[in-house]
Amino acid sequence: MTKDELSMVGFEIVAYSGDARSTLLSLLKEMRAGNFENVEEKLKEADENINLAHQSQTKILQQEARGEDMEMGFIFIHGQDHLMTTILLRDIVDDFIHLYEERGNK
Amino acid sequence: MTKDELSMVGFEIVAYSGDARSTLLSLLKEMRAGNFENVEEKLKEADENINLAHQSQTKILQQEARGEDMEMGFIFIHGQDHLMTTILLRDIVDDFIHLYEERGNK
Amino acid sequence: MTKDELSMVGFEIVAYSGDARSTLLSLLKEMRAGNFENVEEKLKEADENINLAHQSQTKILQQEARGEDMEMGFIFIHGQDHLMTTILLRDIVDDFIHLYEERGNK
Repeated sequence: MTKDELSMVGFEIVAYSGDARSTLLSLLKEMRAGNFENVEEKLKEADENINLAHQSQTKILQQEARGEDMEMGFIFIHGQDHLMTTILLRDIVDDFIHLYEERGNK
Repeated sequence: MTKDELSMVGFEIVAYSGDARSTLLSLLKEMRAGNFENVEEKLKEADENINLAHQSQTKILQQEARGEDMEMGFIFIHGQDHLMTTILLRDIVDDFIHLYEERGNK
Repeated sequence: MTKDELSMVGFEIVAYSGDARSTLLSLLKEMRAGNFENVEEKLKEADENINLAHQSQTKILQQEARGEDMEMGFIFIHGQDHLMTTILLRDIVDDFIHLYEERGNK
């Protein structure tokens, strides 16, 4: 895979991860204001975009593991960073939901 | 270092970081349920695995800094991402422990 | 850009991101102890360092997007990881501020 092709996949991963991240951050903002209406819908939306980004990354890692030649570039790596930090945000959002919801019940 | 050797170190880092991450996420889950029994033990376990992953990463960065030839690959980079996001999770777990413990004392 | 030049930019990004991260983690520690005096000042300080690191990263990504030849290295990539995890920390610090401040008002 050429550097240009890999950059395109990188931009794709940045876009999907970026959408997921915006959705999660806007959910946090809503919960700070006491609004829990969109929790499930926004988590679903974020998960869908994370899955799409994840599939793109996995395809590239598998091609490399099979020994295919990859022309490294920082843009694809930037995509990996976007995805992996967004997955961490997704993992801890459950705790913020929990802490914010309890607060509302007091 | 060849790409294959670096991929092996990458997989090693993914494995250690992944163990640490699972331990921390399961601790968060226990605390959400009000169980604080395993806090110290799980933090210790996570720290040990983070240290092992960190040592592997540092060795590679030092070899590169010394000017050794490194055949870049996405799998090692994926390992770096796993480790660095897990270290961030470790850094903020203290705050979740604090917030969950206080909740229990009310 | 040679690997050595890129490593220097990488170390620069690690330094700025590291400063921002220390500032944010020390703010979290202060808030755990009930001290909210330095919130604004520390956020401002962290944001300034994140901006400096971000500018360095963006310059490199733009050079690559323009087709300039980049000699890849793990140290620059380590810088990218530092920056991206610190940006995530910055994004969620607002929620910790919120949760800690409310606690203080009860």
